[in-house]
Amino acid sequence: MRLHTYFRSSASYRVRIGLEWKGIPREDVFVDLASGEQLGEAYRAENPECRVPLLVDGQIRLTQALAILEYLEEKYPEPPLLPADLAGRARVRQLALVIIADTQPLQNTGPYEFLRDPLGLDDRARFRWYQHWVSRGLGALEAHLADDPRTGHFCHGDTPTLADLAMVPQCSNARRGAIELGQWPTVSRIYESCIELQQFQRAAPEAQPDAKP
Amino acid sequence: MRLHTYFRSSASYRVRIGLEWKGIPREDVFVDLASGEQLGEAYRAENPECRVPLLVDGQIRLTQALAILEYLEEKYPEPPLLPADLAGRARVRQLALVIIADTQPLQNTGPYEFLRDPLGLDDRARFRWYQHWVSRGLGALEAHLADDPRTGHFCHGDTPTLADLAMVPQCSNARRGAIELGQWPTVSRIYESCIELQQFQRAAPEAQPDAKP
Repeated sequence: MRLHTYFRSSASYRVRIGLEWKGIPREDVFVDLASGEQLGEAYRAENPECRVPLLVDGQIRLTQALAILEYLEEKYPEPPLLPADLAGRARVRQLALVIIADTQPLQNTGPYEFLRDPLGLDDRARFRWYQHWVSRGLGALEAHLADDPRTGHFCHGDTPTLADLAMVPQCSNARRGAIELGQWPTVSRIYESCIELQQFQRAAPEAQPDAKP
Repeated sequence: MRLHTYFRSSASYRVRIGLEWKGIPREDVFVDLASGEQLGEAYRAENPECRVPLLVDGQIRLTQALAILEYLEEKYPEPPLLPADLAGRARVRQLALVIIADTQPLQNTGPYEFLRDPLGLDDRARFRWYQHWVSRGLGALEAHLADDPRTGHFCHGDTPTLADLAMVPQCSNARRGAIELGQWPTVSRIYESCIELQQFQRAAPEAQPDAKP
């Protein structure tokens, strides 16, 4: 499998954890989002969304981290990243989408840049935006996790699921943005559990060959 | 099943189409997003995300339209809203997420309001934001659909899938926002095919009991 990736992309990070969890070897193709490589003609021909990750598996070409992870789960069911029961799978997808649909897109590089140019907002206003949406998303996740007996050592039970793969890159991002994770104690506790695992460590931004200081 | 819904919510609209497609009767509970009912204590106790839709099916309570639709697909596989083959399912989820993760959240009411208050942008700047992200999302979808032989009468083949359920509310929203759908000919053609179907018509905002002019 070939993964078009960027070390700091949250969506790439999610897919990297999934591949590491399932022990699937990959060949990385690095796309330098910092220099705008994703917007050039060469990458646009690969992926018209001009985003990473892009997974190429033989004839199959896939974008969108959650679609890629569902594909990997179906093709390589073991070790699983979704629970065995219907209600559990639904809960895990719900938790993942709180981040993937309602949080991460709002604070992604593209929108964050657009607030500056062309919309003309200064860094203070932009940080207010960033902080608001990240806090709202992680706060909603905390509320879902805190009082539910299905929450365990991880978001759902005692092994990681797609919910943890969605949450961890958002937490790393929040910490980089000087947002205190401790205000969401369950999120914070689960984040610490995840980043102790070698699969999460190998997938982390700082462990990638294209990482920059 | 009980669906907490608002007529104009795109995410509620997606779930309504899914329920109509599968012929599942529902009891609606209307949440008036226009007056901020979703932010009050009563609804917050129902759903800490303060969003619609919320589906209640016996003991199961679910938010996030895509998680709800995957749940319905697993519980009531016929008539299907995902293809039978692995690659097809992955493509449909990818197409759905181009809208559900990368387009709709950016132009949703909450962020759009936040740009005005507290960020202070005027209507012209806000419309520029709206137009940019909707156009980018529908443009990416068009690029995925236009040259792929798997695109048929609908986004994937000749029956609707989750991709169409994601796309149609975004198209309706774009038309309401005076964005010309004709610039994306495949998207536009498929949208017209969808809204001819009675299941889509019964799920449409204007057909809901809580619709306002």
